[in-house]
Amino acid sequence: MAILERNDRNHIAQLLLNTPETLNALSDDMLTALQTSLDDIASDDNIRAVVISGAGKAFCAGHNLKEMTAARQSPDQGRAYFKDLFDRCARMMMTIQKIPQPVIAQVHGIATAAGCQLVASCDMAVAAEGTRFGVNGVNIGLFCSTPMVALSRNIPRKKAFEMLTTGGFIEAVEAERLGLINHAVPHEDLEKKTQDLAQTIVQKLTAAVKIGKQAFYDQSEMPIDQAYVYTGDIMVENMMLRDTEEGINAFIEKRDPDWKT
Amino acid sequence: MAILERNDRNHIAQLLLNTPETLNALSDDMLTALQTSLDDIASDDNIRAVVISGAGKAFCAGHNLKEMTAARQSPDQGRAYFKDLFDRCARMMMTIQKIPQPVIAQVHGIATAAGCQLVASCDMAVAAEGTRFGVNGVNIGLFCSTPMVALSRNIPRKKAFEMLTTGGFIEAVEAERLGLINHAVPHEDLEKKTQDLAQTIVQKLTAAVKIGKQAFYDQSEMPIDQAYVYTGDIMVENMMLRDTEEGINAFIEKRDPDWKT
Amino acid sequence: MAILERNDRNHIAQLLLNTPETLNALSDDMLTALQTSLDDIASDDNIRAVVISGAGKAFCAGHNLKEMTAARQSPDQGRAYFKDLFDRCARMMMTIQKIPQPVIAQVHGIATAAGCQLVASCDMAVAAEGTRFGVNGVNIGLFCSTPMVALSRNIPRKKAFEMLTTGGFIEAVEAERLGLINHAVPHEDLEKKTQDLAQTIVQKLTAAVKIGKQAFYDQSEMPIDQAYVYTGDIMVENMMLRDTEEGINAFIEKRDPDWKT
Repeated sequence: MAILERNDRNHIAQLLLNTPETLNALSDDMLTALQTSLDDIASDDNIRAVVISGAGKAFCAGHNLKEMTAARQSPDQGRAYFKDLFDRCARMMMTIQKIPQPVIAQVHGIATAAGCQLVASCDMAVAAEGTRFGVNGVNIGLFCSTPMVALSRNIPRKKAFEMLTTGGFIEAVEAERLGLINHAVPHEDLEKKTQDLAQTIVQKLTAAVKIGKQAFYDQSEMPIDQAYVYTGDIMVENMMLRDTEEGINAFIEKRDPDWKT
Repeated sequence: MAILERNDRNHIAQLLLNTPETLNALSDDMLTALQTSLDDIASDDNIRAVVISGAGKAFCAGHNLKEMTAARQSPDQGRAYFKDLFDRCARMMMTIQKIPQPVIAQVHGIATAAGCQLVASCDMAVAAEGTRFGVNGVNIGLFCSTPMVALSRNIPRKKAFEMLTTGGFIEAVEAERLGLINHAVPHEDLEKKTQDLAQTIVQKLTAAVKIGKQAFYDQSEMPIDQAYVYTGDIMVENMMLRDTEEGINAFIEKRDPDWKT
Repeated sequence: MAILERNDRNHIAQLLLNTPETLNALSDDMLTALQTSLDDIASDDNIRAVVISGAGKAFCAGHNLKEMTAARQSPDQGRAYFKDLFDRCARMMMTIQKIPQPVIAQVHGIATAAGCQLVASCDMAVAAEGTRFGVNGVNIGLFCSTPMVALSRNIPRKKAFEMLTTGGFIEAVEAERLGLINHAVPHEDLEKKTQDLAQTIVQKLTAAVKIGKQAFYDQSEMPIDQAYVYTGDIMVENMMLRDTEEGINAFIEKRDPDWKT
């Protein structure tokens, strides 16, 4: 059984973190598997949305501490390994944002440390009520500095500071209120709600979603005047697509669009 | 009857989008009328606040799709027209932020695509309960890339992403919770609540509001150290105003200020 | 009795603003006392958290208006004094963010103008239900431009704009919902809740908290790619600490860590 299972259906790639015995920790192998899968998906025209979920009791409990501890045996006490590990982890997290397809986290149980970062890095997230989120590395003396990058771009600053310095948890309903996830739902509705969200996106014009996702993150870091120049050009290119012309015509004529892609 | 009606009362300019037959679409003529009115208001010392509302069933349904489709007949298939259109639209939206007077959107019915952008671009917004907000261009193959610029500076990122990629709507109560509007009120209270907000601002020292509005957006894009240098200078200039001296004296002496402006 | 009382217990420095007759105004003397205390604390290895509270009816009502008015008697009508005052105030507010220890505001009564800025500038805040927050300088003709810098980095933009231009107040429960404070609690629980929060942090590895607090604000102003490079290096340094190795070992071995610092 693969540590990361990929199943495609209805243009949705389902990625299942599948090492429940480690609470789906982001081990070296898991990071490699995720990076490879995301890279494959990026160039797979058949895939229009991605769902990441976890097998067993938890979504993801962050880095694999035993693996990290083993690396201390090297002559540099693990320094080069750690540097490489955090680079690989950040690259995987950024890849989620950079692939053209929207990525949805389907979260249950716990999402802690780099597991919480994974949720924050996805474009959207749905969680079962009762799911607990934490950036709790501080409890063992390792401040969640890289998870903080993603978390602090999702929720208000004082609440992010509290989670990071106290190591405390928040539950799904509060995570929704703060903006870390889109929806908290009863556990029995988790898969259906996530699938509905993914299916809604699958039915859109793929080229438009792709254009929009890239622009979403790019413009977010620009001054507003520059963001308008950038997105104005993008709107023009979007308007020139044959399928967009058809979509607008269909709307005006009150009929369904006949999209070719 | 003008497509954009302006009525001034009590130092408030009321701008009424008045093409209900197109759900107050931002046509070429409407954009020009808004730009002209906002430019006039910018230099009108008698006006201390602006309210934008819509006639008929809806606040504003965004761009005029029939007009855009007609532009496809030109030899370049509309490219130059689209570029110019999105430039003009962005300039109008930015003018709302750049004029000295606070601008309040009074919203009912629907505010979609560039109509939702208009709400997000106003300094404040009040909406009737039940009003529906959406950046739903993706439904017809045209991702709301320019509305995204304003929307994503108002609400948490995952919720913005969901609205943009699913084309789904949110209602006024949720829009208030997320930060897209200031207040959701029963429909019968909409005008009064908006007027109360505008009147409250009218009664302030106009020079102080003008100083503050400009500084609000300028400092928001600066690193915090630079923002303090910038606003520190602004506080000094504010302190040197005769009317501010009078305002502080009146407060210390527990009397009403005798402002000359 | 000192205008600013410092009492240390359990590694927590308690700073009490103690001029209740001026609602703990940020006078020249109070700013100096705060700056001096914060600078002392920054290099005090015994202190792991700071709590700022106010004596009497209110937390802090902002600048001392009588002192500011007196400065108008100088030949330059106070210009140089005002410039220096806002510089000193901003430096004190930024010092709160720059010292290694987390700073918690314990708020009751009112927190207005620079008093509200003080709450917004602290890393975390707990307030008694019923506490009123405002940036109400506009009511006397002095727009709260410097408090705006801190406030607008805590709460959604339209709500910040409304508070600044209307001079209106929000209560603690709404302040929590918006992100200005972490917790609104019944008045009788205020001190205990604040102490619990501080104590939780005191029990963490001090070096990790220090690393994290600095990184928190630094990375928040970086583009996300750069933020990951920066925090990746910080994670490596954190991993190399002897006490972090012990913390991780203890976790793996299911025992309490034996931290030396």
